[in-house]
Formats: sequence, C-alpha cells, structure tokens
Amino acid sequence: MIWCSGWELASAVSNTGGLGLIGGGSMNPEKFREHIRKCKATTNKPFGVNIPLLYPHTEALISIVIEEDVKIVFTSAGNPKKYTSYLKENNITVCHVIANVKFAKKCEEAGVDAIVAEGFEAGGHNGVEETTTIALIPLIRKAVSIPLIAAGGIASGRSMHAAIALGADGVQIGSRFVTSEESSAHDTFKQKILDAEDGDTRLSLKSLVPVRLLKNKFFYLVNEAEQNGASKEELMKILGHGRARIGMFEGDMDEGELEIGQVSAQISKIKPAAHILQEIISEFNTSVKEIGKYQF
Amino acid sequence: MIWCSGWELASAVSNTGGLGLIGGGSMNPEKFREHIRKCKATTNKPFGVNIPLLYPHTEALISIVIEEDVKIVFTSAGNPKKYTSYLKENNITVCHVIANVKFAKKCEEAGVDAIVAEGFEAGGHNGVEETTTIALIPLIRKAVSIPLIAAGGIASGRSMHAAIALGADGVQIGSRFVTSEESSAHDTFKQKILDAEDGDTRLSLKSLVPVRLLKNKFFYLVNEAEQNGASKEELMKILGHGRARIGMFEGDMDEGELEIGQVSAQISKIKPAAHILQEIISEFNTSVKEIGKYQF
Repeated sequence: MIWCSGWELASAVSNTGGLGLIGGGSMNPEKFREHIRKCKATTNKPFGVNIPLLYPHTEALISIVIEEDVKIVFTSAGNPKKYTSYLKENNITVCHVIANVKFAKKCEEAGVDAIVAEGFEAGGHNGVEETTTIALIPLIRKAVSIPLIAAGGIASGRSMHAAIALGADGVQIGSRFVTSEESSAHDTFKQKILDAEDGDTRLSLKSLVPVRLLKNKFFYLVNEAEQNGASKEELMKILGHGRARIGMFEGDMDEGELEIGQVSAQISKIKPAAHILQEIISEFNTSVKEIGKYQF
Repeated sequence: MIWCSGWELASAVSNTGGLGLIGGGSMNPEKFREHIRKCKATTNKPFGVNIPLLYPHTEALISIVIEEDVKIVFTSAGNPKKYTSYLKENNITVCHVIANVKFAKKCEEAGVDAIVAEGFEAGGHNGVEETTTIALIPLIRKAVSIPLIAAGGIASGRSMHAAIALGADGVQIGSRFVTSEESSAHDTFKQKILDAEDGDTRLSLKSLVPVRLLKNKFFYLVNEAEQNGASKEELMKILGHGRARIGMFEGDMDEGELEIGQVSAQISKIKPAAHILQEIISEFNTSVKEIGKYQF
C-alpha cells in the first residue's frame, strides 16, 4: 500500500470499524511521523502502521513508532526475528507478512502476535513460491497456531467469507482501498485500476523481488528484458529509482511501476473507504447466512 | 487428470456420490472405449469423460462418446464452439473448462451447460492470464449466469466451502484424487506428491501451453531454457513426446513431466477415493455450520 495509504485512508478505515494501516514504506521518517500524528488526531479507534524491512530507513521508522506510541505494527519483506522482540518490549502488537510455511514458523518462534499470509494474487511485493491464497491459508493454518490474517484476492464480503472458510481469523484488504476516495493514489492510477480486466496484472521482476504490477510500458520493458535473460544488474538499471512514486503517486502510466492485485479486475467504482468496508461486511453477513444452510 | 483418472477412479467417485470423470486425454480411442465400458459395468451412477480438444484424435474420442452413449462430457483446452452443439444434439450434457472471462462468455454463447473455471494453482494445463481461483470465480460468476464449477486449489471441505462462498455452484477436484488408491498414477509419483511442500510446483512451458509441474530434473531443464530465452521450437524439442506418460504413469521422476496442483503440499496420505470424498463432504458440512453463525 505504498503511496496509497496515508492517514486519510487509515483513519477512515479505523473510524468504520476496520484496522486502518498507514503504509510507511513510501514515507521518509518525518513524513511518517506527520501521518501518525494526523491519524491520531482524526480517530480514537485503533490503527496501525506497515513497515517493510527492506529499506535503509527502517530503523528510523521503528524509532518513530515507539516515540509516537503507535500500538500496532505490521512488518513485511524481511526476517520477523529482527524487530519483533524489541517492538514487543515496547508493548506493541506485532503482525508480520509472510508467503510460505517456513516464515510462518519463524514468526511464531519470534513471538509475532499474528501472521498475514499473502497469496500470489496480491498486488505489490510477493513471495517467490507463487502459492495462491486458497492453497496457502490451509497450509499456514496447519503449520502455526497464532492468529492468521489472509491477504491476496480479497476485495468483497464473499472473498472474505472464503478466506475465513479456509481457516483465516481475519483478512487484510489492499487493492480495493487503493481505489477509495481517501487513498492517496493518483486519480489517473485509480482510473487505470477501474479499467483493468483479468490478465492485466502480472508478477514481475522475479529475479529481484517479485512484485505484481499492472501491465504498462514499464512492465513490458522489464518483461522483455527478463525474457531475454537479463541479469539482476540489468534489471536494477531498468528499474532505477522512484518508479512506484512516479506511477502510483504522480500518475505517469507509462514510466511508473503500478502495484496492484488481481482483484483490480473486480473493481468498477471509486467509493469512500467507509462505504467499501460497510459493503464488504454486509455482503459477508449475507453470504454466511445463505451458505450456512447448505448441508449434504 | 491424464494418466491418473481411468475407470477405477471414475467409478469409485461416482459410486460415492461425486461425478467421476474418465480422463480421455491420455488414451487412444480403443483404450478410451474400454475405460468407458468398464466404468459403466462398475457403476450405475452418472459419470463423465474429459476430452481435451488439442489432440489429433479428439474427433475419434467424440465419436466413441456418442457410440457408447456417455451422458456427460467435459471439454477443455480449445474452443467451446467446436463440439458443443454437436454433443448437445446427441443429448449429452457439456461442461467446458476455461480460465478467463472471454472464454466463459464464449461457453455461454455456445450453449455449454456448465463452466469449469480453473485457477492458476491448478495442476496440469493452465490459462495464460494466471488468475487464481479466489480472483477468478467472482469474475466469472458476474460475467455469465450458467452453472459454475470452481477448480484449482480445492482439496478439502474447507476449500470447497471457500469456492461456494466465492460464487461457484460446485467444485472439480483433481490433484487430491491423483493420490487416491484407485488413481492410475504410478506409486512413485504418488509418493513424490505426498513429499511435496509449498513452492514445489511451478507454472512451466509458458510460451507453449502453460502447465503446472512438480519441480524435477525435467522441470529445471525447461526452466533453464526458458530463462535463457529459448524459442518455442527449442522448448518443443526439450519436451519431446510422452513426457507425462513417462513421469506420471511409468514413474520416472527425473525425465517425466509431473503435472500436479499447489494443493500437493496439503496431501499427506494415499486413501481410497470414497474416503477422500466422504472426508471432503464431512469437513464441508462442519465448516458451513461453524461459520454460518458468524455475523458482524
């Protein structure tokens, strides 16, 4: 949710009964502090922050979380053993994002409070195993006993119902909220998501860090290089710096890196975050009532 | 289900209340006729056959289906408009396997009775869009109104529940039955499936016809060629002929093409098909009862 989930979206979600998350990955430390303070000022419900562990300023973000007394941290893209005990010593609830059984077990060993298990269909950074949500959740449920949050492919009450049936305790929803009114994604990017059809996203940059992208000029450039056997160094040169900002935040649909999940094909309207969340909950309630009657 | 689903498996499934399918793709016409006759002799419940439309002897299999008075045909890997009206003129129920919205609509136009929508996690031949089951089923449900069968990632009552929640009317289960006692897969292949962990299958041969395989010597050979930008002709040369038979039926775990889905990581025991089906139904019933109480 880099470049998409600032304080406006996080507080809107929290105020509607979800757990809003500020996406720290695309923020410098002072911007991150500002978003935390604004979120606190606009909700008195719980909210959290997401900190990918692969950036140089990770340590600075962790310090700010403690200084600003944030209660819930989602870490991702790194080893859960690195910061979990430190965060927990500071009375912070820690969730960690994983995509395979090995890291789920590492989370449990590290004392993580809840796991986010993310499938292949999810937008943005992704696992190398390519395990999809429907295949992943039962495996993780069997491997660990701590609370389990499903992510990837979930954009509706029915897909939330599916995730719970698979053994998840909750769901994490990204892409659907990228197209919320409160998302800080550029309007042109939001419109491109509404226009997306099935097959319009693809897991890319597999030999660096796999990331699911909307197909655009930049995607095809990377794709051609990968098909021609480009080295990691060549791919990094093509990637350059700031591609996600250029695309998702500044709206350059040709040169930007456009991170979004496969559910983009299901999204047809920009709505307020509160409406999206209420629709999901209402559809979930209807779905479980309806299917609760089925017996063979 | 080539090389795995002969009359023994099909009739065992049908006798337990499922719809057993004979996988015609790996059978020559006379072998196919023999399996149909043996299936008829061992069940008086409905059963069907699967005919992939990409083989030279497809027309011969279609003729046998009519001669032997088979009532249900699942076609796949081709255009649903090719045989549907002919089969329906012969009072045959036609289901067609698809992996995207475009072909789902083509099925409806062609008069297909039910669609099998198969996600990226499925074993064997697969779609080029890489859409996963949790992302695909809601899209297909919205696009067409004919009955919808979900496939890919389904190996348990809980995943069947998930598929129904997503909007499917039924499920097609392949990989789980490859490791049934009645499956004609080689015992060595069955054992390799039991040993599989998450990440041990991968979509391969993407520039020919995408197919999900267990990683083995053959897989890595193809993978290396693909990463070095091999042409279609070069890949076809590596593939050669009879790779699936050599692996799945004859048990050569190095040189064979081992088609299986991501759910292989969930399978830990070889069981009779009847037990597998009864377990799935029982777990489904428990799951819908349990989750049917959840309301927000």
